[in-house]
Amino acid sequence: MSAHDAVEVIIAKRDGHDLSDSQIDWVVDAYTRGDVADEQMSALAMAILLNGMDRREISRWTAAMIASGERMDFSRLSRPTADKHSTGGVGDKITLPLAPLVAACGVAVPQLSGRGLGHTGGTLDKLEAIPGWRASLSNDEMLDQLESVGAVICAAGDGLAPADKKLYALRDVTGTVEAIPLIASSIMSKKIAEGTSALVLDVKVGSGAFMKDAARARELAETMVALGTDAGVRTVALLTDMETPLGRTAGNGVEVAESVDVLADGGPSDVVELTLALAREMLAGAGRDDVDPADRLADGSAMDAWRRMVSAQGGDPDADLPRARHTHDVAAPSSGVLTRLDAMAVGLAAWRLGAGRARKEDPVQAGAGVVWHARPGDRVTEGRPLLTLHTDDESRFERALESLEGGFEVTDGAGFEPRPLVIDRVD
Amino acid sequence: MSAHDAVEVIIAKRDGHDLSDSQIDWVVDAYTRGDVADEQMSALAMAILLNGMDRREISRWTAAMIASGERMDFSRLSRPTADKHSTGGVGDKITLPLAPLVAACGVAVPQLSGRGLGHTGGTLDKLEAIPGWRASLSNDEMLDQLESVGAVICAAGDGLAPADKKLYALRDVTGTVEAIPLIASSIMSKKIAEGTSALVLDVKVGSGAFMKDAARARELAETMVALGTDAGVRTVALLTDMETPLGRTAGNGVEVAESVDVLADGGPSDVVELTLALAREMLAGAGRDDVDPADRLADGSAMDAWRRMVSAQGGDPDADLPRARHTHDVAAPSSGVLTRLDAMAVGLAAWRLGAGRARKEDPVQAGAGVVWHARPGDRVTEGRPLLTLHTDDESRFERALESLEGGFEVTDGAGFEPRPLVIDRVD
Repeated sequence: MSAHDAVEVIIAKRDGHDLSDSQIDWVVDAYTRGDVADEQMSALAMAILLNGMDRREISRWTAAMIASGERMDFSRLSRPTADKHSTGGVGDKITLPLAPLVAACGVAVPQLSGRGLGHTGGTLDKLEAIPGWRASLSNDEMLDQLESVGAVICAAGDGLAPADKKLYALRDVTGTVEAIPLIASSIMSKKIAEGTSALVLDVKVGSGAFMKDAARARELAETMVALGTDAGVRTVALLTDMETPLGRTAGNGVEVAESVDVLADGGPSDVVELTLALAREMLAGAGRDDVDPADRLADGSAMDAWRRMVSAQGGDPDADLPRARHTHDVAAPSSGVLTRLDAMAVGLAAWRLGAGRARKEDPVQAGAGVVWHARPGDRVTEGRPLLTLHTDDESRFERALESLEGGFEVTDGAGFEPRPLVIDRVD
Repeated sequence: MSAHDAVEVIIAKRDGHDLSDSQIDWVVDAYTRGDVADEQMSALAMAILLNGMDRREISRWTAAMIASGERMDFSRLSRPTADKHSTGGVGDKITLPLAPLVAACGVAVPQLSGRGLGHTGGTLDKLEAIPGWRASLSNDEMLDQLESVGAVICAAGDGLAPADKKLYALRDVTGTVEAIPLIASSIMSKKIAEGTSALVLDVKVGSGAFMKDAARARELAETMVALGTDAGVRTVALLTDMETPLGRTAGNGVEVAESVDVLADGGPSDVVELTLALAREMLAGAGRDDVDPADRLADGSAMDAWRRMVSAQGGDPDADLPRARHTHDVAAPSSGVLTRLDAMAVGLAAWRLGAGRARKEDPVQAGAGVVWHARPGDRVTEGRPLLTLHTDDESRFERALESLEGGFEVTDGAGFEPRPLVIDRVD
């Protein structure tokens, strides 16, 4: 006879009670084994979404998800480790320059990443635009590359937190994605199981982010920092703006090209600013705040690390990136100052052009995406290209253009104030 | 492409919005067809439980469940129809004397009933204690018996509200039974589809009832009366006490015997009182309030209708009822006045003795149950039997006795006030 049963656990949370450690351990384990059914877990997830969990419950839930699978061990590496996680945004290619940059500063970066779903892109999809590059590595290959190159960006194996994998797929189809306890435990179970010693969270706020308002984003950031701290991982979070897309590109190959510009000590200033801010936090967490990452961009060592990292996973860092077969320019409607470029509008356009996927099993186009030629605050001239859309499939332009309607604004610039990129820091 | 998708409907209710008619029609139909998965419906049920539905939503949800199956038609009967539904209690055998009594007054009673689950008994389980009696009738057999006898108590066919059948089974395992909109629509969809022209609801309140407090019971009663009224069924509800079990017996054969006592113009006064109160409401709903049902108990015509009703379904009204192989007396702990007999304690004891079932597929014992020899307000003598437990399986006494611990109280009677049986009427 079991210690608990599913209905008892569901009813406890439904009626607003805290779940005991033993209830949490039991329900996560029983769900992973298939003894708690999907329809029971989805009812529990809805009760958690509506009634919440406290810090102890979330910590225990996270621990139970970690216990459902394997844990990685980086203790034999000669360097400290630091990892970064972003809650997802539009044009958020930061992982690409960041991982080799931090590696060039002497800290190993084990970056387990995902694929895109919906309007936010996926780091693996972007890197797969590089001819030959492969996302899947065994744990031993990953450790070897961390030691030899210092940075690896690859797909998370099936062994880490299988309970989370199963629960995430369930939440996706049952309207229970937006529960802070479940978002926080999903992210942190994988990061803690991965075994990094320091972690920086980039929690996005704004139209193109999962969290549209700052209060909810802060709550998520605080929850995740508490979870990391409770598990012995040095964790900080930055709240960063996602009303405006990052850089000048959203897509796959176009974002790789922009990342290489940053590694070559160029690139858009916001991408550089956020890359350096996150790098400094990762270095501080790993005990290496004596190094200034800006120097490693200037001296070319970050670019060297990028080339080694890409090559180690079969990619050719010198290959031409795929280009879409068709382009379409969107002209500035008037002359003046671009005062708004909406991240969600741009993200949806890139998705509809083929850069993202609607279902997990869909392919993505390596060349598809959106390139914008001005950022908020820049002057634009009537009739000159403001954005360029890229796709292999011309029929996609129409719906992409629809999603851009109302997505930008050109005025005389009066009253325009640039938005701060890093809004706050939570530790 | 569908008009809606499941996640959209779930999120709408999760976020506290009203569901549109079209969302409700779609989700109930799609769930019945299997296009909305169990894990999606359970998440929606939890959101409904926690965020509620308004009168329009519940009405539409009920209509959608009715539309998932067939509707019965009693219009060719020569008599008006009236039905009764009880939300379930301990010792609640009222349907057994009530149906033939109302038939004897000239109103046809099409009573589709269920089996017991947990501590509340099932009408069909009780009648199956009568040798030869069968619960399953075709729709034509049911109509013929309604015309010839005037009363039928049988199992609901699979054709009525199949959406409810599927949803009820799901709610049972997902902690979503206790949602008033879902309870009300479940009960009323079957009653409306069944086609009765008048309906009386017996909504139980107290320890042995589904609803422990009067405010929730009243909310359920008001919700169901509104649903019936909206669907053109003359509907009233009585709120009745279920702190104390009804009559002097809880079980199957023992309750049939007590019902026959009532039909013979005897029986416990509370069972007689509630039977007459419900009969008067049914007669009024069917336009026959010129008849006094007490006369039909006194003149033997209700007993005649009972005998015809039992015989028509293969039962022998003169057969001896099954008796349990073993009995065990519980003695009064002191002399004085029995001031409390807890319905839940008695119900659990009867269940554990074998009168009820833990799972739908379990059999029940026809002879098992509890008989009590005093009712609250009665004087008792130390050492004399207060209750007698009946079962075919002696090993069941121990757990039955455990459930009776603290379930009754004998005092000097100071301050004892009898509880009113009919608490309120909602129309």
